[in-house]
Amino acid sequence: MEVLQNLWYCAALSTELTSKPIARVICGVPLVLFRTESGRTAVLEDRCSHRQAPLSMGVVVGEEIQCVYHGFVFDTAGTCTHIPHQDAVPTRACITAYPTAERWGYVWIWWGDAARADPARIPDPPWTVEDTRRSVYIYFYVKANFQLMADNLLDVSHTDFLHRQSIGSQTGKKGQANPPRMTIETRTEADRVHSLRRVYDTRLGAVAAAWAGTDADEPVDRISTQMWEPPNTTHIRLQFKRGDRMRTINMEHIMTPETERTTHYFMNWTRDFGVHGGYPTDDDVYREQTGIIGGEDIPIVEAQQRIIDQYGGTLKDVPAKQDRLVNDVHRLLKKLYAEARIAGPAEIERLAAE
Amino acid sequence: MEVLQNLWYCAALSTELTSKPIARVICGVPLVLFRTESGRTAVLEDRCSHRQAPLSMGVVVGEEIQCVYHGFVFDTAGTCTHIPHQDAVPTRACITAYPTAERWGYVWIWWGDAARADPARIPDPPWTVEDTRRSVYIYFYVKANFQLMADNLLDVSHTDFLHRQSIGSQTGKKGQANPPRMTIETRTEADRVHSLRRVYDTRLGAVAAAWAGTDADEPVDRISTQMWEPPNTTHIRLQFKRGDRMRTINMEHIMTPETERTTHYFMNWTRDFGVHGGYPTDDDVYREQTGIIGGEDIPIVEAQQRIIDQYGGTLKDVPAKQDRLVNDVHRLLKKLYAEARIAGPAEIERLAAE
Amino acid sequence: MEVLQNLWYCAALSTELTSKPIARVICGVPLVLFRTESGRTAVLEDRCSHRQAPLSMGVVVGEEIQCVYHGFVFDTAGTCTHIPHQDAVPTRACITAYPTAERWGYVWIWWGDAARADPARIPDPPWTVEDTRRSVYIYFYVKANFQLMADNLLDVSHTDFLHRQSIGSQTGKKGQANPPRMTIETRTEADRVHSLRRVYDTRLGAVAAAWAGTDADEPVDRISTQMWEPPNTTHIRLQFKRGDRMRTINMEHIMTPETERTTHYFMNWTRDFGVHGGYPTDDDVYREQTGIIGGEDIPIVEAQQRIIDQYGGTLKDVPAKQDRLVNDVHRLLKKLYAEARIAGPAEIERLAAE
Repeated sequence: MEVLQNLWYCAALSTELTSKPIARVICGVPLVLFRTESGRTAVLEDRCSHRQAPLSMGVVVGEEIQCVYHGFVFDTAGTCTHIPHQDAVPTRACITAYPTAERWGYVWIWWGDAARADPARIPDPPWTVEDTRRSVYIYFYVKANFQLMADNLLDVSHTDFLHRQSIGSQTGKKGQANPPRMTIETRTEADRVHSLRRVYDTRLGAVAAAWAGTDADEPVDRISTQMWEPPNTTHIRLQFKRGDRMRTINMEHIMTPETERTTHYFMNWTRDFGVHGGYPTDDDVYREQTGIIGGEDIPIVEAQQRIIDQYGGTLKDVPAKQDRLVNDVHRLLKKLYAEARIAGPAEIERLAAE
Repeated sequence: MEVLQNLWYCAALSTELTSKPIARVICGVPLVLFRTESGRTAVLEDRCSHRQAPLSMGVVVGEEIQCVYHGFVFDTAGTCTHIPHQDAVPTRACITAYPTAERWGYVWIWWGDAARADPARIPDPPWTVEDTRRSVYIYFYVKANFQLMADNLLDVSHTDFLHRQSIGSQTGKKGQANPPRMTIETRTEADRVHSLRRVYDTRLGAVAAAWAGTDADEPVDRISTQMWEPPNTTHIRLQFKRGDRMRTINMEHIMTPETERTTHYFMNWTRDFGVHGGYPTDDDVYREQTGIIGGEDIPIVEAQQRIIDQYGGTLKDVPAKQDRLVNDVHRLLKKLYAEARIAGPAEIERLAAE
Repeated sequence: MEVLQNLWYCAALSTELTSKPIARVICGVPLVLFRTESGRTAVLEDRCSHRQAPLSMGVVVGEEIQCVYHGFVFDTAGTCTHIPHQDAVPTRACITAYPTAERWGYVWIWWGDAARADPARIPDPPWTVEDTRRSVYIYFYVKANFQLMADNLLDVSHTDFLHRQSIGSQTGKKGQANPPRMTIETRTEADRVHSLRRVYDTRLGAVAAAWAGTDADEPVDRISTQMWEPPNTTHIRLQFKRGDRMRTINMEHIMTPETERTTHYFMNWTRDFGVHGGYPTDDDVYREQTGIIGGEDIPIVEAQQRIIDQYGGTLKDVPAKQDRLVNDVHRLLKKLYAEARIAGPAEIERLAAE
């Protein structure tokens, strides 16, 4: 599949990579990911040049990987360094290797011209890993187009409905008397889109109230600051403010296409509370996030995809006033895909009109 | 998919519809079915106009349904009546609603020109729901074309082989000495096809003998009176006569296409015995019918479909003399599809020649 | 699917055929296989001519099979001999029967011109079933093209890597000091390809050592003599020689296409030791072979197929020096398919260049 080139795509959580190789399809290409004995990350085509057996079924030997079927050996540059029972190894036995980098708890691969791979262009989380913060990392597998999943994060308003009982604000209901005031601002700068959404004096769902450190009855200000950057990383800073008390959560949500209809979804959830004990523990965070994202967001996005496909791609969306961030990102993506002279996902054609 | 238009299609058993919405694809279109707080039935496209999330994952609020994803609200006419955080709702936010009617224990939807929807045209069971009758309703899901499943009911002769041990008559065996006499008559009147099949002095399988209230050794007359009407409802009156004793069972078998290869199968089984106690209880009926239809009819029909598809649709049937009702219905269907200028299912092309 | 014609294809193990019919697709055609009351094997199209219900759901009655749906009866020549409630049976009600033969513990069917079916052309195992040998027969189902699975057997070198711990020789490792010497010779004679591979003074994996009757530390000579013949039978004689002691294992590995991407894999494993007690019992053999073939060979071949398909058939193999037998067979197959004027499987196009 065609995707935006010359960008770092997230391939794995750092914790996923060990000396046991894993198979992962990225942007339609079957890859093998592994960590060598010395700890380096490596990503190669997931095939032995001999007979196309997947290297992910093989074994890491020192700094190399050996095919389990007939014993061919490859180094992390993709060069074949051994064919059993023969001295010469033909150069055409080499396979493609991908530039990799490990940063912020993720393993990234460069998609495009290897000569242009620049670690400085890895998305940079707007938070500092230090003693005052604590992160939990999670990987999700999604049976929907990556942009449809990404749009879920670009649209913070769904929280008040899809997650009303857990992390939503009590706002936006039909016929609600004196609903909490809501404002939303967006701006695009170069290849990044920023937004700021505030809900004032709102009551929260039970889990969000626990994060805020309030009772569910106590109104707080809820401030969501977001930044999106290509290929599809959304940074979210979520703040709960009550008087002069403030609690802050930072998240990255990173979408990497597996195929046109499946997505690797990587995320972290970083808080400045419960860092040295108390609520939430890492287990609390893991349980909450898998419940909310795995049990609510992903099922609805997969269901959207099924409906869209059942209609054969003929549907057009009817955007709401709140969809400014989604629409701004789609507008930018249309420009980026047009410049790259490739067709973008159908998602950005369905929503851009406002 | 193209189907015969301006007809009522059965969408659900009445008992299936509650305030918890259900998703059901009818004739290829994803629909949401629900019952409002006041008890009315409603059928809408199963998609929110905003972002195509299925409304069947939403909730019924009073007389309306709310999308769980971003909170859009729709009434039973498909009109969008609320978008969170905005005053105006554009008219293009409405979705398609389908005329519905509830009768005879089924929920029907009108397929075609809504202005022509006429409840008088709902198929009319030739039995009266009264104290002297008692019905059991069942829904089956079939992985085969609806016409192939419908043909199973139009062909009562299969009972003597597929269901020989349970409800068959002991007739038609190769080399059988003095087989029970069998007669079959059919006639077509307007859009309905009638048939009358009699087997005289036949022994019955164990379950049919229990219905007839005889021992399996006692010969009885077995009289099947059937009427078929579009789109694909077969009414069956099955009578067992022994001397001046008669027992009567009425059934409707109603086929509604889900897709070209899957079918919603609705039925009732109504008897004039065991109504106020004794055999059969409703549980007996449910167990017998799911065993016979779910365990014998549907597996063979799904297997037929697999064979037909494995041959790529090239097979032609070799009808038997007994297949008069099937053939008459197929002949009528060819006329109806031709008048509608749409291609009918492959079934009616394979069998019509006799 | 198009396959080489006028050859015997293995359809089943002899032990699989009883009076309970089985459904099996061979070369894309749905067939029913059964044994009549008198013990004869029969293979017919798996469909009743009436309405295409599979005969494999029917019952064997004497020397005939009866469709379970409406009671049509067919003899082993495919002639319809009974239609319930009618005297005349039209000749077009007959279905296709396939010539069958039972030999060497397998049931074979002739694919091609029935008039040319000649039992003398059934593949002839180069071993004699007698008191001094004992065989175990196994059937495997493989989700890969039959040629890809066949290539696994034509390539004995994989044993040293894929099965290193169990039945491999300790040879071919990168950087191995003084590796055991290996020689390989091949020759093509008419439609057969022969090979002889020797590994001298090699240590063995634990299971092969048990077969050889040695300790894993004791070096032995390992001699593999193979013969391939169409459509895709590989005969293997595996010998372990230590001084003047010799143990011999004979195998047939027979591949029959189910579809382009699925294969019926029949095999026997015949030894001249453990025949009258001691290791291995038949259970030992069954457990070892299902572990090695079912747990190691088939998973890697199915994985190869997935990779090949993910690349859309664009990959070319890079053969090793050891691949002489595979390449010779592919070369012969290209000739046979060209003579038959049909396209062979993609496998023989990917590997033939050396």
